[in-house]
Amino acid sequence: MSNYVRFEYAGKSAYGVLDGDRVGELSSGLFEALEATGRQFPLNDVKLLAPCVPQKIFAVGLNYKSHLNGRPEPANPEIFYKPVTSLQNPNDPIRIPIQAEDVHFEGELVIVIGKQLRYADRQQAAAGVFGVTCGNDVSDRNWQRGPGADKQWWRAKGCDTFAPLGPVIVTDLDYSDLPLRTRVNGEVLQETRTSDLIFDVPSVISFISNWVTLMPGDLIYTGTPGNTRKMKPGDLVEVEIDGIGKLSNPVTAD
Amino acid sequence: MSNYVRFEYAGKSAYGVLDGDRVGELSSGLFEALEATGRQFPLNDVKLLAPCVPQKIFAVGLNYKSHLNGRPEPANPEIFYKPVTSLQNPNDPIRIPIQAEDVHFEGELVIVIGKQLRYADRQQAAAGVFGVTCGNDVSDRNWQRGPGADKQWWRAKGCDTFAPLGPVIVTDLDYSDLPLRTRVNGEVLQETRTSDLIFDVPSVISFISNWVTLMPGDLIYTGTPGNTRKMKPGDLVEVEIDGIGKLSNPVTAD
Repeated sequence: MSNYVRFEYAGKSAYGVLDGDRVGELSSGLFEALEATGRQFPLNDVKLLAPCVPQKIFAVGLNYKSHLNGRPEPANPEIFYKPVTSLQNPNDPIRIPIQAEDVHFEGELVIVIGKQLRYADRQQAAAGVFGVTCGNDVSDRNWQRGPGADKQWWRAKGCDTFAPLGPVIVTDLDYSDLPLRTRVNGEVLQETRTSDLIFDVPSVISFISNWVTLMPGDLIYTGTPGNTRKMKPGDLVEVEIDGIGKLSNPVTAD
Repeated sequence: MSNYVRFEYAGKSAYGVLDGDRVGELSSGLFEALEATGRQFPLNDVKLLAPCVPQKIFAVGLNYKSHLNGRPEPANPEIFYKPVTSLQNPNDPIRIPIQAEDVHFEGELVIVIGKQLRYADRQQAAAGVFGVTCGNDVSDRNWQRGPGADKQWWRAKGCDTFAPLGPVIVTDLDYSDLPLRTRVNGEVLQETRTSDLIFDVPSVISFISNWVTLMPGDLIYTGTPGNTRKMKPGDLVEVEIDGIGKLSNPVTAD
């Protein structure tokens, strides 16, 4: 089991291996032979970044029974894209965009893909997972399904800062039954186990790969449980998954 | 006015400047100071690739009056994302995916962004355009709005090979009133002028930039005119825009 981060130090960014409270700098990326520079930094001295830079971000809608609220269970995973510019670093703010009226948190388990996958069966899909991390699939409900709904969720799910990610990618972890909770200002508002996913991780990956090639570094936000509510500037949102870590982001006005 | 291509020669890819039937190789990308290697190749000796590698691909739905077919004119540009893995090179095949039932062509003017843009007004948006090229926003109507519709257009618009692009990016061209036509097996099936766009290019860019940062190399498929119809393996689809060029792709089964 390894913990990978991406970080900034003295104006430069690099990947790193987190060991306790020390970060060992890598000169390589995560999806090639790892090479260490030998330099180590105290965790407190670096700025953590979103732990990988994907080519694509997939997300799954309606993937926990507790989030359906009477809507029918989907026959297939309901996939959508978030743009790479929506990524946000741990501890950096979720900015409420102009004209947004109803911006919600969505705490989620996020899969980091490690191999190029096309027509992957469940076993190949599972073997194609590099690791897992925490994510927040920030969503404006008005643009998603309110009176101001767009035809597609490009704004609802895609504004800058709408995809906080991190802080660490954990490898070789059994992610099939982990407790996940989301807190706003310390209050637990979502609580589930990842075993409650309607479509589990290998199913989602295998399904996608029938039509869209997955690349190393691609992310899948796997869906959110239970109920969500509106965030406001000044809030602190935390997505915590036991065994992975805690992703914290303050909320500000744009 | 310059014509840029991306090409493969002897197993390596590079950007190039097209001058007549000769390609001058660049060692740089397109969105930095251009540097030429001094090597030149006959156009016929290189394999043309999609002319840029974007971080994001935007597309606009319902952006020609002639494509509305009684649907109301949208109040805002209706934006969606296509994944970068959907890009396809000129002359390489559009592959009809498994389970796809109704895959249509959509000939379109495509904008290549040259500058990072956020909160751009119309003038800044226009100045942020690097150049223009031809694109085909390939779409499965069943997954888009048929009985097998997904909630979002991730498959309808996002399968591998669903975004042919090229062959050249033309800079410093007035793209506001260019004739555009799409042919299948030589028969003209779409014909319009880009002046018929409901939301013109600066309006689309400016609108997007209120919520999503545009980056150099990002693409915008600006919308398709008139009517489209189903393609079948064996077809040859050509999107031609006068002053830019002709994008040709055969259709095959996957």
